[in-house]
Amino acid sequence: MEKKYKLLTPGPLTVSDTVRAAMDFDYCTWDDDYKQVTQWIRKTLLDIAQVSDAVYDTVLLQGSGSYAVEASLSSFLDPAADKLLVISNGKYGERIVEMARCQGLNHEVYALDYDQVPAADRVTEILDGDPAISHVFMVHNETTSGILNPLEEIGQVVQSRGKVFMLDAMSSFGAVPIDMESISVLVTSANKCLQGVPGFAIILAKKDLLEGGQGKSRSVVLDLCAQYAEMKKEGKWRFTSPTHTVMAFRQALEEYLAEGGLEARHQRYANNQKVLSAGMEKLGFKPYVSADKQGPIITSFLYPTEGRFNFNDMYAFMKDNGYVIYPGKLTDVETFRIGNIGELYQEDMEQVVALFKTYMEERYDA
Amino acid sequence: MEKKYKLLTPGPLTVSDTVRAAMDFDYCTWDDDYKQVTQWIRKTLLDIAQVSDAVYDTVLLQGSGSYAVEASLSSFLDPAADKLLVISNGKYGERIVEMARCQGLNHEVYALDYDQVPAADRVTEILDGDPAISHVFMVHNETTSGILNPLEEIGQVVQSRGKVFMLDAMSSFGAVPIDMESISVLVTSANKCLQGVPGFAIILAKKDLLEGGQGKSRSVVLDLCAQYAEMKKEGKWRFTSPTHTVMAFRQALEEYLAEGGLEARHQRYANNQKVLSAGMEKLGFKPYVSADKQGPIITSFLYPTEGRFNFNDMYAFMKDNGYVIYPGKLTDVETFRIGNIGELYQEDMEQVVALFKTYMEERYDA
Repeated sequence: MEKKYKLLTPGPLTVSDTVRAAMDFDYCTWDDDYKQVTQWIRKTLLDIAQVSDAVYDTVLLQGSGSYAVEASLSSFLDPAADKLLVISNGKYGERIVEMARCQGLNHEVYALDYDQVPAADRVTEILDGDPAISHVFMVHNETTSGILNPLEEIGQVVQSRGKVFMLDAMSSFGAVPIDMESISVLVTSANKCLQGVPGFAIILAKKDLLEGGQGKSRSVVLDLCAQYAEMKKEGKWRFTSPTHTVMAFRQALEEYLAEGGLEARHQRYANNQKVLSAGMEKLGFKPYVSADKQGPIITSFLYPTEGRFNFNDMYAFMKDNGYVIYPGKLTDVETFRIGNIGELYQEDMEQVVALFKTYMEERYDA
Repeated sequence: MEKKYKLLTPGPLTVSDTVRAAMDFDYCTWDDDYKQVTQWIRKTLLDIAQVSDAVYDTVLLQGSGSYAVEASLSSFLDPAADKLLVISNGKYGERIVEMARCQGLNHEVYALDYDQVPAADRVTEILDGDPAISHVFMVHNETTSGILNPLEEIGQVVQSRGKVFMLDAMSSFGAVPIDMESISVLVTSANKCLQGVPGFAIILAKKDLLEGGQGKSRSVVLDLCAQYAEMKKEGKWRFTSPTHTVMAFRQALEEYLAEGGLEARHQRYANNQKVLSAGMEKLGFKPYVSADKQGPIITSFLYPTEGRFNFNDMYAFMKDNGYVIYPGKLTDVETFRIGNIGELYQEDMEQVVALFKTYMEERYDA
């Protein structure tokens, strides 16, 4: 076994020992006990989203979060009739564009610099200028930079124009308040703020979409309507499900509720981010995203402008000392990223800052 | 925690305690240690298949085995130029047909009853009668019934006609000898005969296919050529990988090699199946598939013809006594299935037969 560390990444993240321990049994995929776990998870996710099960329902899908994004496009959009607007200010927005292109969907892109958030006025202009647009897809928290997009304003515009609003809430659901009012489709993942392990993705969607799209999907495995039709009956997944991941996720949800749900988790993460950010800035590190746009999940820091900064060296030092950080994902400026979600607390953030202080004093070749 | 049991299912299956224990750490997806594990797995799979890495390579794909089947169709077949022949004698063959239809692929089906195996002569006829057919897909071991299809004969014909032969070896790879000579694409899963836990699928394919299909896929997440291009560099998955499942699979492969590889595992499974089958037949249960066509993975038994046989009651009895069996998947006759793969040994099979004996004597309402 290699040396242990905690993950300062945007997920997969460090989960609790008890979440991992829940994986220590091989469940039968079609046994009632297991199917009931699936049903409990689906119901609990609706509760967390604070939506009525008369209007919304949950589908779980094998694969990573990106599978849920592509499955949503494949299941809910018709290449012959629909047109998609993608709001993009990072790599995950760009990935949605790539998927739309690959599926041959009519689409338009509202592209922004990675440190800028979309303006509701501009979205209004685009929608009013192109009535063919039927769906709008936006990433809530772009982990590319750590920027948090203005969900409420954009949602209001999209809703007022009667469009289907789809939200990639991969790294925000469960920790950042989300008013579902304007949202028809929300995709997230087991291994982000709900602190499960990776293996499946989650789709919360309006039931009329889940029930109305039979036979529309260009893929069998990514067909959310077919997955839903099977799953809603008694909790059976159409294809082999990642049983251990599912059991870990049940435990993760129990712990989420015990911690105090969204409010408590939001507070812990927001505090983590604040402690980290303040400490790093004190050491001279500048954040890439301005404070008013910074989300509570992950922070991009610019490389120091003076001296030679070697990411790999710093990474190795941090890993030796028990923390794994994340490289930047920007093309124009050199950054590294530090996530603060998962089983991480204020003392972890203080320890990380202390390690950076040591590194900068002892190893950094300024 | 509900009562524990062992799985007599075709996978997900009961794995060793040490395989599950390997999941007790949250690995960083992009750390070198983890990427090296991915590379080791990919290389070891080529060794197990006994193929040269000059000709073949391995791609791992998030999701269940069916994801790999659909990804292969999406990545390696061109709807405008190619035509697929699906050889089908079970639900998994039918699923390939469903996927071909969904993707708009030209295809033809050689359909057989579920207790019949395809004839090489008939495949020859079909291929010679329709030169447009470019690819042939067959399931090796159909878990629908437990029938083992004649791989060598069919492979020879397909190869002699210069067609691309694709094999669904989901429940056979690693335990049933497979001569890769005729095979261009083989798909299997982490949670079958290699005894890992569910979460990803495996594709062994000729490198010219993996390298030649860039941009062909109708799906981003199911694009095996793109997945390969990224993964071959240094072991990075394009999207979040199921880290715990991957670590469990490394351990499973270590144990596979320690057990003695394919020969030892084949022998253990074949012996399990023989002990089970002989014992059940002694109790009066008739197998659905004739002995010469029966595979060593899972066996379908017909319901007794006399008396009232209640599957749910028997299932509950078996589960109470530590074993979970599988319902039948046939439409024309009533069957149940007993798998014998995973961390199961002769004593398990003897115990299962003894439990059936008790059940039939004490609870069965004949």
